[in-house]
Amino acid sequence: MDQQLHRHIDEDRLRTDITQTAEFGSVTGEEGHCRTVLTGTDANRHAREYLVKALAERGLDVAIDAVGNITGRWVPEGVNPAASAVATGSHLDSVISGGIFDGVLGVYAGLESIRAMQDAALSPDRPIEIVSFTEEEGGRFSDGVLGSSVAIGATGVADALATSDDDGVALAEALERIGFRGEGRLDATAWDSWLELHVEQGTRLEDVGASAGIVTHITGTIRCHIDVIGEADHAGTTSMTSRTDALTAASELALEIESVTNGIVETDSETAVGTVGQFDVEPGSINVIPGSVHLGVDIRDVEYDSMERIVASIRRCLGRLEDERGVETSFSRPYDIEPTSMSERCITALHGAATRTGVDTVDLHSGAGHDTMHVAKATDGGLVFAPSKGGYSHSAAEWTDWSDCATATRVLAEALYDLASA
Amino acid sequence: MDQQLHRHIDEDRLRTDITQTAEFGSVTGEEGHCRTVLTGTDANRHAREYLVKALAERGLDVAIDAVGNITGRWVPEGVNPAASAVATGSHLDSVISGGIFDGVLGVYAGLESIRAMQDAALSPDRPIEIVSFTEEEGGRFSDGVLGSSVAIGATGVADALATSDDDGVALAEALERIGFRGEGRLDATAWDSWLELHVEQGTRLEDVGASAGIVTHITGTIRCHIDVIGEADHAGTTSMTSRTDALTAASELALEIESVTNGIVETDSETAVGTVGQFDVEPGSINVIPGSVHLGVDIRDVEYDSMERIVASIRRCLGRLEDERGVETSFSRPYDIEPTSMSERCITALHGAATRTGVDTVDLHSGAGHDTMHVAKATDGGLVFAPSKGGYSHSAAEWTDWSDCATATRVLAEALYDLASA
Repeated sequence: MDQQLHRHIDEDRLRTDITQTAEFGSVTGEEGHCRTVLTGTDANRHAREYLVKALAERGLDVAIDAVGNITGRWVPEGVNPAASAVATGSHLDSVISGGIFDGVLGVYAGLESIRAMQDAALSPDRPIEIVSFTEEEGGRFSDGVLGSSVAIGATGVADALATSDDDGVALAEALERIGFRGEGRLDATAWDSWLELHVEQGTRLEDVGASAGIVTHITGTIRCHIDVIGEADHAGTTSMTSRTDALTAASELALEIESVTNGIVETDSETAVGTVGQFDVEPGSINVIPGSVHLGVDIRDVEYDSMERIVASIRRCLGRLEDERGVETSFSRPYDIEPTSMSERCITALHGAATRTGVDTVDLHSGAGHDTMHVAKATDGGLVFAPSKGGYSHSAAEWTDWSDCATATRVLAEALYDLASA
Repeated sequence: MDQQLHRHIDEDRLRTDITQTAEFGSVTGEEGHCRTVLTGTDANRHAREYLVKALAERGLDVAIDAVGNITGRWVPEGVNPAASAVATGSHLDSVISGGIFDGVLGVYAGLESIRAMQDAALSPDRPIEIVSFTEEEGGRFSDGVLGSSVAIGATGVADALATSDDDGVALAEALERIGFRGEGRLDATAWDSWLELHVEQGTRLEDVGASAGIVTHITGTIRCHIDVIGEADHAGTTSMTSRTDALTAASELALEIESVTNGIVETDSETAVGTVGQFDVEPGSINVIPGSVHLGVDIRDVEYDSMERIVASIRRCLGRLEDERGVETSFSRPYDIEPTSMSERCITALHGAATRTGVDTVDLHSGAGHDTMHVAKATDGGLVFAPSKGGYSHSAAEWTDWSDCATATRVLAEALYDLASA
């Protein structure tokens, strides 16, 4: 193992890639600089084209699959091109007014790792692939992590391409328009292993003063869509005893979810979270009793059992609201992903890399999904975090110091080289 | 008193006016026929032009005041034109997708009453004025009852004209565009008395089988605007113990308002209502903890004390939410109207009219505001209700049978003639 690899990581080069990418879909608001890069938009095309150029500059073989996943494959001299690769990467799309590091850091940290190996004249024993997955955020199509779902075979190519946005535009059409609807299907099961570097989007690294976090588990996520239907009536002429108010019924549900989740945190699993993020009230006029509320609920934990307990409490609460308040309710859970453990091999490689580079790390779980949640089901997977200032993400306030970006990239590079060396 | 006046009320003529007016801004949905007639729109222009023509056809002097209030003044032969008039009317604007009777019935029932007097060759001792007030619903400008507020001097003409819609268009500009920005100010204090016929928008008439309702009190209305500010954070990476969720805090407030109001209904004043109709959650994404909720609260009762008690409970609840949940809150009550009693003289005239026409009536309070809420502060005021099928209003389901429209108009006509006769 060459002890000098991490010294070839070039902070300025990495910074240039990230700040250049931040120009695409750039939004400048009161709170600072952010970006809106939805799949299939011009901003997305520019971010993708910049990556393809950067991969080609270092001699990587670029491929675009049918759902727009981008790969750049480096086959070092003397390596069997058919050998299974060690892969790394993340995504280039963003939420609306998202941060400039989320996803982008992981893609370019991967490329910077290869550039450092090339500059150090290091030749690992396996190919290394840099990956940018399509539609990780779910900002336009799907509920997110779509490209990696296709890459592990959980979602079919045709189903993914048929997914449409709010205006009825299909993913196929959107990718075609920007010239990134390729052929074939990226197959994550063919990889030897996978590592992703991502910003933490939380404060645990900052809280303990660690420069990198090594993820042991990614929480599962269940998303529930719930409608509570009452009767829209005149707020002044409908007495308290003759109204069926969807809002107060839905408020009970929101408080029940919070209360049950807090109970689980106190007694069983401190990592459990339950959030009502979406709460759309119709008609929403000050003088009309709400006739319906649509709730979007997000439930996560490293223990699937506790997630199921929260769902069960929602079902019971809905039954009670129907009985006691006369509302009608509907419930669906279209998004249901179990918790994922990172592979011991990848965790060990990351710990070793941190030791060699002298970086203080902390083991933690990830409450955010990330493409690794999928990929780790198909091959040995690992996930490493860089610290997020104040924990902010999905906003202009997202920030990771450039030195922290470089430090985490050094850990990634060393671990990739370790995994790719026989 | 001529016993035959009510026999000259022509149901078909009234029906034609209402169904013709229903064509302007007509919206056909799954639930039936409704209309969207916001102040200053083309639909509003057409409804106003139809009225002006109908008033002129019967020889009434039409005037448009500075805020677009329309009056048609009938001075019967031999009557001193300077005598104070008995006035009646309502409004032609609607909420979005509103019913076809709300407001329109009152305007054309007034005109039909004059047509019946003319056809019966009756000559009252005072002028009678038909009025259509501007922006009763508050669908585009203001919080509603704007034209009548100007007519009693509670709102200045300049302030009313400067009121702007969500796109920044001022009322002055909108009225100018449709040719209904007139001159002077309609002065309700100059009237001898005022009657308004309106659909009930509730089920009390239907419940007791009465054909008309004679209103004794109009509830007061307090509207509160409240912001609950938490912190928008990632739903997956922010633990239950480190989040400040604006939605669950606002849910507690919604349930507190319901609970306190129910308590007042049970023990003190069964007419009290408290409604959270507006509840806007930001950012409203399923995977983001809500950072803020804006609540619009509507409080009404015939007792001002109980309304104040509900407001006080809101203030206490906000203080508790700040202490216990760490949210910030803001509170304002820009709309605050005390309950209004109808004048004994008008109530007596309506009872007498009902007796002469053989119509079963019931005395009741009005939970809806109506222009009469303002006008009854400036002169003797009365309000009479026609039954609403199922109590529905502000929707396509609003319906009043044509025979009920005519019956209530008969009561109105007799009462107007009574008040206008020396």
